[in-house]
Amino acid sequence: MIVIRSLRKIIPLLRKYKVRNKSIGFVPTMGALHKGHLSLIREARKENDIVVVSIFVNPVQFGPKWLWLSEAKPRPSGLEDFRRYPRPIKKDLSFCLKEGVDFVFLPKVKEMYPEGFKTYVMVEELSDVLCGKSRPGHFRGVATVVTKLLNIVGPDNAYFGQKDAQQAIIIKRMVKDLNIPARIKVMPTVRGKDGLALSSRNTYLSEKERKDALVLSRSLKLARDLIKRREKRAKKVILSMRQLIQRKKKAKIDYIDIVDISTLKPVKKISKNCLIALAVQIGKTRLIDNIII
Amino acid sequence: MIVIRSLRKIIPLLRKYKVRNKSIGFVPTMGALHKGHLSLIREARKENDIVVVSIFVNPVQFGPKWLWLSEAKPRPSGLEDFRRYPRPIKKDLSFCLKEGVDFVFLPKVKEMYPEGFKTYVMVEELSDVLCGKSRPGHFRGVATVVTKLLNIVGPDNAYFGQKDAQQAIIIKRMVKDLNIPARIKVMPTVRGKDGLALSSRNTYLSEKERKDALVLSRSLKLARDLIKRREKRAKKVILSMRQLIQRKKKAKIDYIDIVDISTLKPVKKISKNCLIALAVQIGKTRLIDNIII
Repeated sequence: MIVIRSLRKIIPLLRKYKVRNKSIGFVPTMGALHKGHLSLIREARKENDIVVVSIFVNPVQFGPKWLWLSEAKPRPSGLEDFRRYPRPIKKDLSFCLKEGVDFVFLPKVKEMYPEGFKTYVMVEELSDVLCGKSRPGHFRGVATVVTKLLNIVGPDNAYFGQKDAQQAIIIKRMVKDLNIPARIKVMPTVRGKDGLALSSRNTYLSEKERKDALVLSRSLKLARDLIKRREKRAKKVILSMRQLIQRKKKAKIDYIDIVDISTLKPVKKISKNCLIALAVQIGKTRLIDNIII
Repeated sequence: MIVIRSLRKIIPLLRKYKVRNKSIGFVPTMGALHKGHLSLIREARKENDIVVVSIFVNPVQFGPKWLWLSEAKPRPSGLEDFRRYPRPIKKDLSFCLKEGVDFVFLPKVKEMYPEGFKTYVMVEELSDVLCGKSRPGHFRGVATVVTKLLNIVGPDNAYFGQKDAQQAIIIKRMVKDLNIPARIKVMPTVRGKDGLALSSRNTYLSEKERKDALVLSRSLKLARDLIKRREKRAKKVILSMRQLIQRKKKAKIDYIDIVDISTLKPVKKISKNCLIALAVQIGKTRLIDNIII
């Protein structure tokens, strides 16, 4: 396994494989790797000659004021702290080594966003709803960094998790719209035995909070059960989910939405190709989860 | 020479050359080819194994309301007509054939911007000044289509004309910021014997208007002469240019600016790395020209 920290080094290195027509599988991550990432890496390993994992905590997707954060100024309320995000880099590297990753790419912020950086990729409409509402600029940051990473790595296949459903939908749309020559593969959400969707942010949770956090997956299970019992009204399903979650005093609902999976517009009547997605603040930690109907 | 009209065909076709490590030179155009394009194509021919020319009148860069235009609704004032843009396709193809172009790519609007298209590339700050002021959305359209075309063709080198100075600067910034693996080469403006910068839009001009249009290059020559004679004050130079142009009654100045070549911000004192750029409406035709000091 080769660890590369510089843009200038990775580009010619990977180009060699492209010329030899070797397929490249790419798993872009923000590190703090868990079993969700594992499923992406294993799928990449299975389907490609070369596997590249990037670990980069992307400041631009932490909101428009991320520069404040990196400059150690007061944190604007409502924005997650870019500095606080976990970075267990040694653990992540041994994780990758164990899984037979060929290249780990660890770019530096200054090389990814040099002075004078001015270019952003925007996926309109899809970026303003669900998580985009409470995290302005977030998906612009995601779309921009993913475009950059796909251009740097030039993968045949790139792997994302269904846990970040909106992100996956936006990236698929973007790759199609910009004709980026990569296939986007979305792997199912991996859950703990208790049902909690795996997330790097789960490490923020206390033991008590982790128990409260189970309301996310439980409310989705409730939704699925209601729909199985022929409930078609989105309003009704959302109300039941809301009531379940509100029983936990420490849980603060950001949103619960049932939307069309390609437009992300709310639906009134639940049918095929619906995404049920929610975001809930548990203590100081914002968690998301979703299912597709 | 192979003419390709479909995205699905060109991608696997060009991929074959990439795998064989052949270099690809790319000249993206809107057609109505003239000697300015010729210099780009010849440079591409000289420096690459394969030369690809695209001809695509990009609706998105004609302003935010281009859909109206393509739907034959009344033209919003101030916007150039997307339909009016010249499309002498047979002449263009024989032009390319004569120059030894390998592939001409003629994509369709519906394939480039299919239903549900939502992704745009924005180069901030650089897109809002000079031509960006009077053509809102123009450079967003340019940045988006160039990103798409570079992703489709995957060239080693892509060629642009200095005549569209702001476009060249924006594209260079964008390619750097998004890590697009192509080198951008900017070739000098080609002029007629009378000094008029070659442009596809010159075909709009009547004989009388063409004579009036010479004020653009003449005002730039005046600026160069003034600067040679040690005039350093941007304000003074702009005033002299303005006075020269205003002598022509049919000439309506859109802007005359002297800016830093990398930030496009106005300078007070003229030094190295300045761009003197102007846009002037001659009758119904908007023309641009520039020089670098």
